[in-house]
Amino acid sequence: MKITLEAVLPAEIERRSMELIEQELATQKIVLQPELAPVIKRAIHTSADFDYARNLVFSPGVVQKGRAAIQNGACIVTDTQMTKAGINKKLLAHFGGEVFCFMADEDVAQAAQAQGSTRAAVSMDKSLTLNRPLIFAIGNAPTALVRLYELICEEKLKPELVIGVPVGFVNVVESKELLLQTQVPHIVARGRKGGSNIAAAIVNALLYGIDK
Amino acid sequence: MKITLEAVLPAEIERRSMELIEQELATQKIVLQPELAPVIKRAIHTSADFDYARNLVFSPGVVQKGRAAIQNGACIVTDTQMTKAGINKKLLAHFGGEVFCFMADEDVAQAAQAQGSTRAAVSMDKSLTLNRPLIFAIGNAPTALVRLYELICEEKLKPELVIGVPVGFVNVVESKELLLQTQVPHIVARGRKGGSNIAAAIVNALLYGIDK
Repeated sequence: MKITLEAVLPAEIERRSMELIEQELATQKIVLQPELAPVIKRAIHTSADFDYARNLVFSPGVVQKGRAAIQNGACIVTDTQMTKAGINKKLLAHFGGEVFCFMADEDVAQAAQAQGSTRAAVSMDKSLTLNRPLIFAIGNAPTALVRLYELICEEKLKPELVIGVPVGFVNVVESKELLLQTQVPHIVARGRKGGSNIAAAIVNALLYGIDK
Repeated sequence: MKITLEAVLPAEIERRSMELIEQELATQKIVLQPELAPVIKRAIHTSADFDYARNLVFSPGVVQKGRAAIQNGACIVTDTQMTKAGINKKLLAHFGGEVFCFMADEDVAQAAQAQGSTRAAVSMDKSLTLNRPLIFAIGNAPTALVRLYELICEEKLKPELVIGVPVGFVNVVESKELLLQTQVPHIVARGRKGGSNIAAAIVNALLYGIDK
């Protein structure tokens, strides 16, 4: 067994990892569209799960639109502290953006209980108070996606981008299909898979692809 | 398409999700050992990836040992802020434990640069200063696992448990095999898969299974 220190420095690990992902994709005869490849490869990089080469759905021009929104100072709203933790906030701040997660807020908990709703859904309502261009990165709660769908249909909210990658077994698939019916720019992991790590990876892939 | 509000409240989602996971495991004719099942099912729950029914390796009695360590006030050291964010810290605090992640510490960054090492590896060294019983939850950096292996072999560190689930393509598989050679209680995701979400899910599965 060989573990060489030269090989393990982070920048080098990442470069070699992406090469290995590309090789594996070639072996599986999967050809990615160049503009989508960085997003797909980073989702695979964070999960080692090549299903993300097949299950990610992109609305037209969404990668370019997402990057433009970030360059214009868009903020990111997440449905978990994990996704917030995983986003490169220093780089986002370079463009004027911030990450918000309202899940632990006391007013959100109270409103959810009063309404018989979820904190995730109420968090989406709270995002309306931000008055900033918004990107939503939803890696956990289908109720967040359902609430976003309602707010979009009611024309109360017009997100720059919705990253709809909740994971799980109950209402997850359906919530993603709702989002796919909208005209809002979106990146969706069709099916059960996704997660807070995938949501953060997609945001970071958009960030890392912006020319500074 | 049917999205019923009754079905989407979090506690109910989790209960039904676990049922669906059990059904899918039964369909795949996978029988889990009862003491390991909560950990495996929670890893699947956080990823929707049934590979975790096959790739998780448990040292003898490790679930019981991990829970006993938590009950005795063990602290958790993580290699990412994401894993720290995902762990139920309120419940851990109930038993006297805390979560530490040293990755963003300035002294760690400086030492890593001075040594030509990684922040993840230096973070493991820093954990020696805690003087508390420790559980390591490693979901990202193989260099953290390699450094833990060295510290264990040098008898500088005797962890209560190492959760070794880094994800990726470079040195990840090898770092896990190193850990598997030790006598330290461990839970390892053999192969490329794992992640910060999986590391947090395993810690939470241990926490949720403790009788309060």
